[in-house]
Amino acid sequence: MKIYDKTTAQSLLAELKDWIFENDGIEKKFEFKNFNQALAFIVQVGLLAETKNHHPELYNIYNKVSIRLSTHDAKGVTDKDFDLAKAIEKLF
Amino acid sequence: MKIYDKTTAQSLLAELKDWIFENDGIEKKFEFKNFNQALAFIVQVGLLAETKNHHPELYNIYNKVSIRLSTHDAKGVTDKDFDLAKAIEKLF
Repeated sequence: MKIYDKTTAQSLLAELKDWIFENDGIEKKFEFKNFNQALAFIVQVGLLAETKNHHPELYNIYNKVSIRLSTHDAKGVTDKDFDLAKAIEKLF
Repeated sequence: MKIYDKTTAQSLLAELKDWIFENDGIEKKFEFKNFNQALAFIVQVGLLAETKNHHPELYNIYNKVSIRLSTHDAKGVTDKDFDLAKAIEKLF
C-alpha cells in the first residue's frame, strides 16, 4: 500500500475542497444548517465507510462535523483515504 | 438553570455507569462490537438529542463512541445533561 508524503498528499488534496493534511491524515470540517442535517451526513458517511470497509475518525458538535481519514495499517495516507474523501465530497 | 459543581455531579454520576466529570462536562466512552453497531447507537443518540433539543459532543472511531455532555448556555453541567445521560444509558 503506497503511503503519500505531505507534499504529494497536498497536491492531491488540491482537487478536493478544504481538506488539509495533518498528522499523517487528511481532515475536513463540514458545517451544516442544523444538527438534523449534520446527523444525516454522518449516517451517509457511515454507510459509505461500511461499504468501502474504511472508516473515518468523526467528531460532531451540533451543526459541525469534522472528518479525519488515515490508513491505520499503513500508518499514513493512502489511496483508500483519497478514495473515501472523494466519495464524501460527492455526498456533501 | 442550576449548575452542578464537581462534587455534586460526581455523586449524581454514581447512579450511572462509567460516566466521569471532566472540564465542566460529563463524559462516557462506549464500545461496540463493530462500526455498524456504533453507527446505530450514534443515530439513536442523535434522535434522542433532537427530541430533547440538547445535543452531545460526539467522537467516533470504528467501534468506539465518546459522548460529552455540557450545557453551553450555563457553561457547566445541568439537569439537561443528566437527563440526556440517563436516556442514553437506557439506549445502550
